[in-house]
Amino acid sequence: MALYDALFTQLDVTSSQLLVTDNDFRDSNFRKQLSETVKSLLDLKVIPIFNENDAISTRSAPYEDSSGIFWDNDSLAALLALELKADLLILLSDVEGLYSGPPSDPQSKLIDTYIKEKHQGEITFGGKSRVGRGGMTAKVKAAINAAYAGIPVVITSGYATDNIIKVLEGECVGTLFHQDAHLWTTVKDVAARDMAVAARECSRRLQALSSQDRRNILFAIADALEQNKNSIAVENEADVAAAEQAGYAKSLISRLALKPGKISSLAKSIRVLADMEDPIGRVLKRTELADGLVLEKSSSPLGVLLIVFESRPDALVQIASLAVRSGNGLLLKGGKEARRSNIILHKVITSAIPASVGEKLIGLVTSREAIPDLLKLDDVIDLVIPRGSNKLVSEIKESTKIPVLGHADGICHVFVDKSANIPMAKRIVVDAKIDYPAACNAMETLLVHEDLYKTGQLNVLISELRDAGVTIYGGPRASSICNIPEAVSFHHEYNSMACTVELVDDVHAAIDHIHRNGSAHTDCIVSEDHAVSETFLRQVDSAAVFHNASTRFCDGARFGLGAEVGISTSRIHARGPVGVEGLLTTRWILRGSGQVVDGDKGVVYTHKNLELQS
Amino acid sequence: MALYDALFTQLDVTSSQLLVTDNDFRDSNFRKQLSETVKSLLDLKVIPIFNENDAISTRSAPYEDSSGIFWDNDSLAALLALELKADLLILLSDVEGLYSGPPSDPQSKLIDTYIKEKHQGEITFGGKSRVGRGGMTAKVKAAINAAYAGIPVVITSGYATDNIIKVLEGECVGTLFHQDAHLWTTVKDVAARDMAVAARECSRRLQALSSQDRRNILFAIADALEQNKNSIAVENEADVAAAEQAGYAKSLISRLALKPGKISSLAKSIRVLADMEDPIGRVLKRTELADGLVLEKSSSPLGVLLIVFESRPDALVQIASLAVRSGNGLLLKGGKEARRSNIILHKVITSAIPASVGEKLIGLVTSREAIPDLLKLDDVIDLVIPRGSNKLVSEIKESTKIPVLGHADGICHVFVDKSANIPMAKRIVVDAKIDYPAACNAMETLLVHEDLYKTGQLNVLISELRDAGVTIYGGPRASSICNIPEAVSFHHEYNSMACTVELVDDVHAAIDHIHRNGSAHTDCIVSEDHAVSETFLRQVDSAAVFHNASTRFCDGARFGLGAEVGISTSRIHARGPVGVEGLLTTRWILRGSGQVVDGDKGVVYTHKNLELQS
Repeated sequence: MALYDALFTQLDVTSSQLLVTDNDFRDSNFRKQLSETVKSLLDLKVIPIFNENDAISTRSAPYEDSSGIFWDNDSLAALLALELKADLLILLSDVEGLYSGPPSDPQSKLIDTYIKEKHQGEITFGGKSRVGRGGMTAKVKAAINAAYAGIPVVITSGYATDNIIKVLEGECVGTLFHQDAHLWTTVKDVAARDMAVAARECSRRLQALSSQDRRNILFAIADALEQNKNSIAVENEADVAAAEQAGYAKSLISRLALKPGKISSLAKSIRVLADMEDPIGRVLKRTELADGLVLEKSSSPLGVLLIVFESRPDALVQIASLAVRSGNGLLLKGGKEARRSNIILHKVITSAIPASVGEKLIGLVTSREAIPDLLKLDDVIDLVIPRGSNKLVSEIKESTKIPVLGHADGICHVFVDKSANIPMAKRIVVDAKIDYPAACNAMETLLVHEDLYKTGQLNVLISELRDAGVTIYGGPRASSICNIPEAVSFHHEYNSMACTVELVDDVHAAIDHIHRNGSAHTDCIVSEDHAVSETFLRQVDSAAVFHNASTRFCDGARFGLGAEVGISTSRIHARGPVGVEGLLTTRWILRGSGQVVDGDKGVVYTHKNLELQS
Repeated sequence: MALYDALFTQLDVTSSQLLVTDNDFRDSNFRKQLSETVKSLLDLKVIPIFNENDAISTRSAPYEDSSGIFWDNDSLAALLALELKADLLILLSDVEGLYSGPPSDPQSKLIDTYIKEKHQGEITFGGKSRVGRGGMTAKVKAAINAAYAGIPVVITSGYATDNIIKVLEGECVGTLFHQDAHLWTTVKDVAARDMAVAARECSRRLQALSSQDRRNILFAIADALEQNKNSIAVENEADVAAAEQAGYAKSLISRLALKPGKISSLAKSIRVLADMEDPIGRVLKRTELADGLVLEKSSSPLGVLLIVFESRPDALVQIASLAVRSGNGLLLKGGKEARRSNIILHKVITSAIPASVGEKLIGLVTSREAIPDLLKLDDVIDLVIPRGSNKLVSEIKESTKIPVLGHADGICHVFVDKSANIPMAKRIVVDAKIDYPAACNAMETLLVHEDLYKTGQLNVLISELRDAGVTIYGGPRASSICNIPEAVSFHHEYNSMACTVELVDDVHAAIDHIHRNGSAHTDCIVSEDHAVSETFLRQVDSAAVFHNASTRFCDGARFGLGAEVGISTSRIHARGPVGVEGLLTTRWILRGSGQVVDGDKGVVYTHKNLELQS
């Protein structure tokens, strides 16, 4: 009690000890008195600290018997929570919560929500030490009693100092016990699926609109954003303030903040997008199959997109307007640090969508826990686009069967051939590394033809990079020859002012090195020898392959694609920088005048390519 | 013994009883004599039947002690297998084999391969009845003894009469014990991955060849097929004979048989493919990004394809030649009924691939068990193309993260609008159903505008279909009005001379019906009203949408795509009938003269579309 008192005093909070015994609870007057006392203490902002009045307690082992009302601090806590009609009971343990098996067993999983029907009898508790007084068995028993009498309970670790705050903020920490928990998993699954299905239905109505009507929706969204500029700023400032208070990194806060004029510039870019040629219904191919039977391959929306993005709330606006332009339904999941910004942006945007389409065209998912449910819906979501860290992309790729548009890493190479123009090579190598060292299209490995070592030009390149502030690591050959520290691995993305240098025999060795160690993102050759360059361009199996130009050019805007949806290292659907065409698929449209196949005697096939009409 | 004798006599086989005792085996002369006796019996085609000579045996409980040599029929069998140097010991049980727990427990799994390191101590046997003489414990003990002394053992059920034959044919039946089993799982995984990695390496060498060299490989394959026509025919006939003997369905046997002239026609089609424009390296888009900086989007091979096909050995030839044409590596898994045909076709084709590419470009997987291993390799296989039943496609889609090109079902609709030209509608509806009723593009549901009921034209359409031999089922409205049996479900693929008919209010109701119940394959409207037809064509969200033409036109050959890789109902990568372009992806090729990005001040962007050069 002295410790509680000392700690609460530091926070200028008064606490008060209340000691009770088992027998007290048999007296209904005591129970009434207890409630009133606690109410009064709380009104005075005094924190009651309960404990068993051990000194006068007459109870002895076995602690748990049918005559008892409570047996230990856990059952006392449950009893008090009920008596005092608590909103929530938090039981602190020395482990993260309830596990499916002994917490020391790596096979055991933390149970986030206890479901009696599912977990009863399935859980095996740890060793003997855990079943004594205050062990997990006692906690679970107490939690179940309280929960099924109507008081929600969370068992979590007392070691993590902010766990109580996290619980109060509704984060998924420890194990939650709730009498309705058995209803939730179904509800959760259905909710995610319902969102996706509703988005698809709305997208079909959006697609059925005329091109002009879709254009008008974008103008309405742009107007709505400008009209709500102030309230958006208020919410964004609240997010920024919270992030600053939470001590987030400066780079995150700068990505989070919508700078003055940002909303206007977003609105402007939406109007540009609206004036773009309609990407839907474009005829990509026309063929006359037979007289009066004309086939068209025509662009159409993919269906429903799931975008998972971190920090930047402006990404929400860009992606939502791209989705409307391309006739797709959209589910958005933003970072929690941008929660308030995302909610208001989503509200403003969907309020501009006409009822004939439905605001469920764009769904906003706010809880992190919904992601695994969404990633399971490969029958109703057509494409996932993660925008964030390599870790986010890898995790999503690992855990879904839905196609993922993105790249987990960007290990880009520049190969300087013996025929290279050295001043050009210096320029390209430095730009590829330092223009934006953390970008996915920045150079991570410099491969140099071995002849350039003999001529001293390897050292010229290394010096140039060092002069620009780049730390150099070497592959086995380069590090031993040039006396530079050895790189940990060739498959390494520095994302900073550092790179690896290695010597290779020739262009073929360079290509092999890239295939073995690269990430098939962007690779470059610097060479004046036409045959060597063409070999490199033809054989390197990466999304982008460059000759005598910086790897930094690999970018949707620099490629002139208009809006960039992402850069994909997947080989399916879209590869490299992807514009709005990455959100489209095709349909085959056939117009006839009663033709039938009839065992291929029904028509005379002509298969004539026709011009694409505008 | 009388029973064995009676049963073997029915098969015209002589059997002979041999009775032994434990003590006999202590005498090395006896053991030598035993081997010679058995060898003589087998030379005379007499089957030896061993048993313990119970009548004179001196052993009593406990049956198992350190002085004994065998204790029951199982340990006797293991002992004899060793003494007689058997190739295989089969122990028959009353359950399918060794389970991970009591066989009655639904959680227990049949162990296909016993691995001492993994399973020892992990397996819990059933109730007490199973540990007595002849129980599973005794069998496993005997099996382990024999297996680790070098004799492979299979424990399987004696109830399934063909289990012994299946074991001898190498099928995965019961539980196998083998001293090298611990090496296999790793070997199996590595083998699948190695095949895929080798195919990718070979495909990169194939891609590096000139277009003319790739063309020459196809000519060499065509020649090799013709040169080996006779040996291919011999193997194919053996497959056909085996399938006939096994009583397979006629339709399967007809798909299996390579008819006379088939090899020549396959060779001819390979030569046509060789003369086709090279699909690799085609420039799809050219843009000048800045002065002297030109970007090309160019077609390139996908990488490694996995094709799982049933029955037809000609599919192997078509797919292999398409893979060579498109520069891809290939793993093939054919049906076991075509095993001998597939092996020789694979051998003939790969022998025509030059060493500079490597014959591992095309791998043939012969064991069914390898499929799950292959489907896990989403990092080294780029696309799976299943060619076979809906069931095959669904199973593969369910069990892999690799993109799958195919369609699980084809529930195609024809909607006859009130404005339809009725003679045309009759022609289209009948052709769509009866031209090839089992095809995926055959009509399964006929939707009719409700006004056509009042005019009697619904009945005209139904009569037309019935006259053509089609059995009609009705949706709720049609069945009650027209007195036809009700269809089980709208989401039903008859694949036969039957279809569902239903009335709908108008084109919008038809579109809703198709979105709700269809499979997004091919859907058709018959209508003379331009606005109605265009609404249908614009809004129906299927791979192919037709106006006034039979659904049967949805086909790669009829669409003029050349070779058909498959019909895809996936929305990603390729949709509808897919030709060789489904085996391709793109790369971005940028050619410069030393340009750098330098914070986008390095060049002046022009983003000028350039003409595609040939």
